[in-house]
Amino acid sequence: MAILSDAATEVLVPLAALVGIAFAVAQWVIVSRVKLSPSAGGDRDKDALGDALIEEEEGLNDHNVVVRCAEIQNAIAEGATSFLFTEYQYVGIFMSIFAVVIFVFLGSVEGFSTRTHPCTYSKDKECKPALFNALFSTVSFLLGAITSVVSGFLGMKIATYANARTTLEARKGVGKAFITAFRSGAVMGFLLASNGLLVLYITINLFKLYYGDDWEGLFESITGYGLGGSSMALFGRVGGGIYTKAADVGADLVGKVERNIPEDDPRNPAVIADNVGDNVGDIAGMGSDLFGSYAESSCAALVVASISSFGVNHDFTGMCYPLLVSSVGIIVCLITTLFATDFFEIKAVKEIEPALKKQLIISTALMTVGIALISWLALPAKFTIFNFGEQKEVSNWGLFLCVAIGLWAGLIIGYVTEYYTSNAYSPVQDVADACRTGAATNVIFGLALGYKSVIIPIFAIAVGIYVSFTIAAMYGIAVAALGMLSTIATGLSIDAYGPISDNAGGIAEMAGMSHRIRERTDALDAAGNTTAAIGKGFAIGSAALVSLALFGAFVSRAGVKVVDVLSPKVIIGLVVGAMLPYWFSAMTMKSVGSAALEMVEEVRRQFNTIPGLMEGTGKPDYANCVKISTDASIKQMIPPGALVMLTPLVVGTFFGVQTLSGVLAGALVSGVQVAISASNTGGAWDNAKKYIEAGASEHARSLGPKGSDCHKAAVIGDTIGDPLKDTSGPSLNILIKLMAVESLVFAPFFATHGGILFKLF
Amino acid sequence: MAILSDAATEVLVPLAALVGIAFAVAQWVIVSRVKLSPSAGGDRDKDALGDALIEEEEGLNDHNVVVRCAEIQNAIAEGATSFLFTEYQYVGIFMSIFAVVIFVFLGSVEGFSTRTHPCTYSKDKECKPALFNALFSTVSFLLGAITSVVSGFLGMKIATYANARTTLEARKGVGKAFITAFRSGAVMGFLLASNGLLVLYITINLFKLYYGDDWEGLFESITGYGLGGSSMALFGRVGGGIYTKAADVGADLVGKVERNIPEDDPRNPAVIADNVGDNVGDIAGMGSDLFGSYAESSCAALVVASISSFGVNHDFTGMCYPLLVSSVGIIVCLITTLFATDFFEIKAVKEIEPALKKQLIISTALMTVGIALISWLALPAKFTIFNFGEQKEVSNWGLFLCVAIGLWAGLIIGYVTEYYTSNAYSPVQDVADACRTGAATNVIFGLALGYKSVIIPIFAIAVGIYVSFTIAAMYGIAVAALGMLSTIATGLSIDAYGPISDNAGGIAEMAGMSHRIRERTDALDAAGNTTAAIGKGFAIGSAALVSLALFGAFVSRAGVKVVDVLSPKVIIGLVVGAMLPYWFSAMTMKSVGSAALEMVEEVRRQFNTIPGLMEGTGKPDYANCVKISTDASIKQMIPPGALVMLTPLVVGTFFGVQTLSGVLAGALVSGVQVAISASNTGGAWDNAKKYIEAGASEHARSLGPKGSDCHKAAVIGDTIGDPLKDTSGPSLNILIKLMAVESLVFAPFFATHGGILFKLF
Repeated sequence: MAILSDAATEVLVPLAALVGIAFAVAQWVIVSRVKLSPSAGGDRDKDALGDALIEEEEGLNDHNVVVRCAEIQNAIAEGATSFLFTEYQYVGIFMSIFAVVIFVFLGSVEGFSTRTHPCTYSKDKECKPALFNALFSTVSFLLGAITSVVSGFLGMKIATYANARTTLEARKGVGKAFITAFRSGAVMGFLLASNGLLVLYITINLFKLYYGDDWEGLFESITGYGLGGSSMALFGRVGGGIYTKAADVGADLVGKVERNIPEDDPRNPAVIADNVGDNVGDIAGMGSDLFGSYAESSCAALVVASISSFGVNHDFTGMCYPLLVSSVGIIVCLITTLFATDFFEIKAVKEIEPALKKQLIISTALMTVGIALISWLALPAKFTIFNFGEQKEVSNWGLFLCVAIGLWAGLIIGYVTEYYTSNAYSPVQDVADACRTGAATNVIFGLALGYKSVIIPIFAIAVGIYVSFTIAAMYGIAVAALGMLSTIATGLSIDAYGPISDNAGGIAEMAGMSHRIRERTDALDAAGNTTAAIGKGFAIGSAALVSLALFGAFVSRAGVKVVDVLSPKVIIGLVVGAMLPYWFSAMTMKSVGSAALEMVEEVRRQFNTIPGLMEGTGKPDYANCVKISTDASIKQMIPPGALVMLTPLVVGTFFGVQTLSGVLAGALVSGVQVAISASNTGGAWDNAKKYIEAGASEHARSLGPKGSDCHKAAVIGDTIGDPLKDTSGPSLNILIKLMAVESLVFAPFFATHGGILFKLF
Repeated sequence: MAILSDAATEVLVPLAALVGIAFAVAQWVIVSRVKLSPSAGGDRDKDALGDALIEEEEGLNDHNVVVRCAEIQNAIAEGATSFLFTEYQYVGIFMSIFAVVIFVFLGSVEGFSTRTHPCTYSKDKECKPALFNALFSTVSFLLGAITSVVSGFLGMKIATYANARTTLEARKGVGKAFITAFRSGAVMGFLLASNGLLVLYITINLFKLYYGDDWEGLFESITGYGLGGSSMALFGRVGGGIYTKAADVGADLVGKVERNIPEDDPRNPAVIADNVGDNVGDIAGMGSDLFGSYAESSCAALVVASISSFGVNHDFTGMCYPLLVSSVGIIVCLITTLFATDFFEIKAVKEIEPALKKQLIISTALMTVGIALISWLALPAKFTIFNFGEQKEVSNWGLFLCVAIGLWAGLIIGYVTEYYTSNAYSPVQDVADACRTGAATNVIFGLALGYKSVIIPIFAIAVGIYVSFTIAAMYGIAVAALGMLSTIATGLSIDAYGPISDNAGGIAEMAGMSHRIRERTDALDAAGNTTAAIGKGFAIGSAALVSLALFGAFVSRAGVKVVDVLSPKVIIGLVVGAMLPYWFSAMTMKSVGSAALEMVEEVRRQFNTIPGLMEGTGKPDYANCVKISTDASIKQMIPPGALVMLTPLVVGTFFGVQTLSGVLAGALVSGVQVAISASNTGGAWDNAKKYIEAGASEHARSLGPKGSDCHKAAVIGDTIGDPLKDTSGPSLNILIKLMAVESLVFAPFFATHGGILFKLF
């Protein structure tokens, strides 16, 4: 047996979650010390730190700047809150209907009978009736959805709380601004990771009161948690993604291209919508997405473990190994964060990116030790795993290897992503260079770069899959995914840091602060762009592993032993599944395009009809642009959402589990490629443009300055990349995960009643 | 037994092929009646037809125009011939090396022993030694390669023979020009289809002299024919694709965008290279490609049939069913062609596109009858097919259904492609409309259109696969692919018609002919654009079916019974296989981009250094541009070629047949999507640009005219689409087919010696 007792596990997991929450709250308190009310704050800060504020040096009125920052922040926060509320209303209706569907479909498996039956894997035990599994699955589905909403909403709140504070701190220096943005990111990262773990832990313990001995039923119902989290994430990502890019593209097309005014200029009517978009798309959407990945990989690992020797022997500590890995992750990330906030101080612009990248390395290195420790403490030396009908013996160090390979594969993917999207390296510089001959060659080179950037991540994923699968079958894949996500708190801190810095820059511009402040926030933002791309790499890599693990769990639960490519049912599933990412991307790309066109019309209309707008004497109607983005994204998120949610139901019900297995495998192998290439192409175009704008090298200056033909070509690339990198690309993660987790939840129904069409003919 | 005797089959197949060749020669003779020597031709034509030539109406000197046309044609033909010779030299070296590889690898299967052994499927018979199979496979490989070279080269010859003749005929009216271009296309279509059939037929009969009773060995060696054809096609498509698009993009970027001179203006130094490109890429490349598809689907059907009851019972007519289907196809296409050339006459521009589309419908309808007839005549009422270890009974009408569903799925794919790429329908018009807000929205909408256009073709392919697989396992898929390709002569005629018309327009422009002539050739070209897109749809759809059939044959030959997605070896193969189309596209896109940049530099240099070039007094150095395109494409075709050719060898040798099966399936399901979306996106951008230029509707005029901001945005989209639709997209067909046929040829080696890495660990 394991060294760690069951009682210790019962204490350790919630303790780690609570420590994480406490740490997040502490960071929040520190950030809140930056006052947004001018009278007290400005003075106290100055006295306390002895720093002369730049705005004052330059003779500007500090009082007015702070008031304006506060106003803009309020406008952004209001827009974001109102969008999220509208979104949650619509999604709430959908979730309620879908909860009923889950209950009815799963309840019907045994004809709504309330009798117990012998368990599938331990024939000597009695398992709870399908009707109650249906009920508990529905409850955990709703819990997952609510936790996801809370995660996204809290992230948005802290981001819109921190953006203006980052701007104000930028007056004192780049280090101060960095630390404010980073701490705010950490609030989101730790809240989300800890919250997800805590709710999952409590749910398991509460459900155990009913299920008692029936761990099969218990952990099958828990899969609803992953489905809930992921469904919410789908709408968050798609809706938020359309919102943010419609506003961004619309604002840029009229502002930058037609009117020649800078980004975030307060005269642009879409500027508030653009900044709101960062918060609802990149913050709330991404928070929901990564929470979904986390919930799903935990559920996949738990449900696979429940039919292993852990589940059969009721080894609670072994069973909770996935939760323990996440608990260790929170502590490791806490220590890692201190390296950025307390152990070192950023003093110059060029230190920002290394500091962020160091976070990834430190957390990965520490986590490797953490995993080794917990594998030694929590796992018996040998245990058996269920492998599609066979038993497979696994050792604790073998499982350690699975988690570690996931963790390190994540790091490799992150670094490759950085290489292909950062303008410090030749790929992006080549793309920038292609702007010499216009937008067309820029786009051709950018697309080629995105395609090329797929190669190494795919090999990393393939090696990860092969090793972890060979060691511990689908359980190995599930814990490899968990390994990749174990440093999620740090990953999210870095991710959230980006949009906060981006917003801070926007606020500086809108508040009319000096050029030097804007330069500092731009530097923060540029580093954030690269880390955002790394974060997307992580999200996609983990999504691939998670959905493979879920696929394995689905296949086990549906009683499928072989998914043979040489069977027509499977091969048509594969072909159609591989097509789904394209169908989905077509919808989301077109949605962004149409919404952006609407936005362009509105911005043009305002410039043409509001007198004195260009001269800065008239005031634009920000609210109307916010409304257009909101309406468009709510309306347009429904078709792609429906495609993803309905596909497994339709395929499973009408074509059965074999075809559904093909669809899941096809969507997985094709979706990963589309997602990686779309994200990296977009990231590369963005940074190629920034490379020309920054003019940091002789080569870059030969392409610039802003407004040159090369720069215009680069702006076109950047605009095309927007929906690729922030709408289609990241939403595809959710497509592949969500279809898999939905199939898993509905597996008993499909296995019993599925394949109607084939049965008829 | 079948109604058709073996002796009748022995006569019918070569007869159909000879009729096809005779028909092609007849068309060539008719085309050659248009004289390119001014003295006799111009006068005789005029006298004979009683038509006043437009050039003369307008008072231009007819003599000079004809001389200039002849000169330009010579320049194009010379450039194309010299490129193809250079290409064939390099590819020849490669083919020789690869022939040795085939011989050594296959010879080593039984340690180069010369002893016979019991057959795999008919244990009571003696089969020929592996060493001789290796030898005959090598011979058929070389025969396939040579036939492919001949097909491509002849196509190029007739195209460069017909282009100026089409221009001259355009003086007499659009109908005359159409018929010249169409007849020339038919020469290529019929020569290629008949040649392919005849060589295959002769090879089988010659090989039979040695093999005698051993049909397993015979038809396994014949698969080398498909590999040879396809390897050659790979280099033809990739090399030709890079050539044509480097020249096209380079010419457009400087000519249209920077210098504001029209397309095909003789002052542009890259203009000859651009026209050469059409002939080596769209004609020779496509000819090799479709010949490869045809050879592969025949080989796949034959090798699968050789282990069915046809092979076991030595039913020669049943065995030759694939060849008989192709023979009927030639006759059907011959009749179909008469509908365009003799039964009706084109009188107005708007009749061109319907006439071409009618060709597809007529050939499909007639062919359905033809297949029914030949299935009834050549097949026994019941026979058995080998289905991965099991026997499956198939009826003759069942097999008819398989061929027919392939045929009709091809038509559906063709029509969907047309809907998404013709500017008569809303998708392309929406893309054109998106140009209002600039190039970025144009590109976003175009990409979305390409993604969307994948949906219906994939469903058509999926239904085709399911039905034909269910009826007759992999043999069903193979004959479905053959069905789709059975009207290849008509398909190729239409395809080749496009670039010939395009060239004709170029020659008119370069020869300084009147605006009205150019309008007529433009109308021919516009119709050709849409049919080119339809042709690409066919090519991709058939490639999907062919490679699935080859995959099935490979799996049978390698002795694999199950390809289980739930095994780690297969799943990593799937993931990596799905990545290969991206890797390949990255290479080809980047190649086009780099080669185009070189071309741009050269064209700019000539404009800057040659005095009087812009004014039309100086003469550009066409040859240098031709050389740049040639060198670039030869150099750049090697890496993507190596990727495709080496992947099956490396995977099979080091990872074994299971992983290789995964790679093939992954590349297939992902490659089809990338290929369709790339081709259609490119086609849509091209036609969106043409839509604005033509200004045929009020909507179109509101976006135009040429040179407006909308039009400039459309030109950027068109340029981006060039490598997508003419290099990456169509080359991907070959990627998926070639990897499959190569695996099939090397299957005995992989099955015996493969998987070294997994054996070691």
